[in-house]
Amino acid sequence: MDSEIVGIIAGALSCTTFLPQVIKTWKSKSTKDVSLTMFLIASLGTALWLVYGILIHSISIIGTNIVVLFFSLTMLWLIFRYSRKK
Amino acid sequence: MDSEIVGIIAGALSCTTFLPQVIKTWKSKSTKDVSLTMFLIASLGTALWLVYGILIHSISIIGTNIVVLFFSLTMLWLIFRYSRKK
Repeated sequence: MDSEIVGIIAGALSCTTFLPQVIKTWKSKSTKDVSLTMFLIASLGTALWLVYGILIHSISIIGTNIVVLFFSLTMLWLIFRYSRKK
Repeated sequence: MDSEIVGIIAGALSCTTFLPQVIKTWKSKSTKDVSLTMFLIASLGTALWLVYGILIHSISIIGTNIVVLFFSLTMLWLIFRYSRKK
């Protein structure tokens, strides 16, 4: 088995992990059961991965973490947006 | 700045990303707003990262993804457990 094929599929899945939550929250406008702390940690962790990618000049790490950071910050925005309306 | 210090902090944060959601769901016993698809993708992605880590003999990738897979599967179990009770 080519290990890089497994790595590319794993990376593609990691990129889209938060997308279903963004879609669900966007439609339901409800964030009661969703952990704010999870997305704070995810955003901070992903931002640090991005810094790491820039420091070691890795396009794969930079690209992946830009996508994950985008979805993670979108979730933070949705959580603040819909929790305020209650 | 030592890039490996940034990488280690980023990795530690990634490991614990799902933990706050596990704690929140464990306490509230409510999973209505949480995306099942997110944790299905996370579990599959993390399992593939684990396979990738084994294939390229990377202890860091193996260790990190065992932790993330554990929390991700715990969330799947909590979602099935509490959604059935409704």
